[in-house]
Amino acid sequence: LIREKGAYLKSSRPTAVNLEWAVDEMMRTAIAERGVGVRQLQQRLLKEAHAIAEQDRLMCRAIGKHGAAFIKSGMRVLTHCNAGALATAGDGTALSILYEAQRQKIAFEVYADETRPLLQGARLTAWELMASGIDVTLVCDNAAGLLMREKKVDLVIVGADRIARNGDTANKIGTYSVAVLAKANEVPFLVAAPATTFDLSIASGAAIPIEQRDAAEVTHFAPGQPRTAPEGVQVFNPAFDVTPAGLITAIVTDRGVIRPVNEKAIQKMING
Amino acid sequence: LIREKGAYLKSSRPTAVNLEWAVDEMMRTAIAERGVGVRQLQQRLLKEAHAIAEQDRLMCRAIGKHGAAFIKSGMRVLTHCNAGALATAGDGTALSILYEAQRQKIAFEVYADETRPLLQGARLTAWELMASGIDVTLVCDNAAGLLMREKKVDLVIVGADRIARNGDTANKIGTYSVAVLAKANEVPFLVAAPATTFDLSIASGAAIPIEQRDAAEVTHFAPGQPRTAPEGVQVFNPAFDVTPAGLITAIVTDRGVIRPVNEKAIQKMING
Repeated sequence: LIREKGAYLKSSRPTAVNLEWAVDEMMRTAIAERGVGVRQLQQRLLKEAHAIAEQDRLMCRAIGKHGAAFIKSGMRVLTHCNAGALATAGDGTALSILYEAQRQKIAFEVYADETRPLLQGARLTAWELMASGIDVTLVCDNAAGLLMREKKVDLVIVGADRIARNGDTANKIGTYSVAVLAKANEVPFLVAAPATTFDLSIASGAAIPIEQRDAAEVTHFAPGQPRTAPEGVQVFNPAFDVTPAGLITAIVTDRGVIRPVNEKAIQKMING
Repeated sequence: LIREKGAYLKSSRPTAVNLEWAVDEMMRTAIAERGVGVRQLQQRLLKEAHAIAEQDRLMCRAIGKHGAAFIKSGMRVLTHCNAGALATAGDGTALSILYEAQRQKIAFEVYADETRPLLQGARLTAWELMASGIDVTLVCDNAAGLLMREKKVDLVIVGADRIARNGDTANKIGTYSVAVLAKANEVPFLVAAPATTFDLSIASGAAIPIEQRDAAEVTHFAPGQPRTAPEGVQVFNPAFDVTPAGLITAIVTDRGVIRPVNEKAIQKMING
């Protein structure tokens, strides 16, 4: 039964690798405790879950510390989707860097892409940065290009759902577009992710499965809201895309900064 | 009074140049008819308006005929915003090319970017292409990059709001991003616009005013709908951006195709 439920949980996010990792940790615990009573097993699993959450908090904090050196006074930072405190047990990955810079009293501004279709940027990132007193401006995903072309963005920081051995990075749909725009406008593009997000079993991004999601996310603004696209329209709704390593200036991990991004540097940081 | 109303109408779309052109035509008529009775003036202005509409229909049709040669059998075409029958008196500009290709029995498919914030792609383009029996698939703006990287787009066609003397083109926000993605993925990028969209008084796109619009377009999905971003969040909502001439493969006009896109070729086509 536990195996079945574990497989079900893992199937909910085929692209991301951290959930799979955490579920595997829990399953290992459950299997190691085989034979104990249900109550005792529950307590052991709860303890393990708390340990994973604490580990996540520490990883987030370490990413922040390694990444804060990228934030200079007066910078305008653009982020896509939510890789913050609302997406992790700690301060987040991309946003942890901003929280650490804030603790270091560095002044900076943030542009948050709204991140269609599910608007994590509008609903989550803008909210948590405002709540933390960070100067944040919400933009449509379509405005990121204009901002960069008008030299209003000095740095891009995003999170990651899975990073292949060569550095190709799967993240929320639209991240690849932001990376191409950053390259074209000579804006450094950072990925922030813990070592557990690396999947060294995968040679490149081509092997990362991309989750396809419901058409209703695109044809309706939110569940229960009126439709905004014609009845019966065909929809293509990939939830993630892959940014090739060549577009990534550096990957900030809890163990340190990988730069330049290539297989050798990744192996050294993650395995060594 | 007419001058005042004309200035008011023109101020409603500072970026686009075609409305300004049409209002000026109407004002010229009104001034030429100075002294006639109100009823007669109304009739003259209505006649002029019908003439402008008929001219627009012919321009759209001519753009379609010049552009259809770009559409090859089996092509997947991506478009952004709405430059179709719902935006012009005729078949549109970008979409006129598709309607002409359909009349020529060329088989093709279309991806329509939804085009946040106002969703002209979802609400207008998808609707009118479906109504015309063209195979259209709706995508979030964020998915355009993935489509191009996965070689699922053979051609991009967009309209234009104003084209400077050097070919820099203002169009709906996000068009620049699509053009950068097209260039990075070696996908031809076409602009379709009548000669009246060229503003030869402007040397480059830097001189085109960009209309800034209400934050509510970004914080609420549609007027009267619940908000989807935190109360009080700062918003930057430019309605247009400028695509530099260097990213444009060709401009399809009612007079012919400008390719390559540069000042000399534009002067020759537009001024004779």
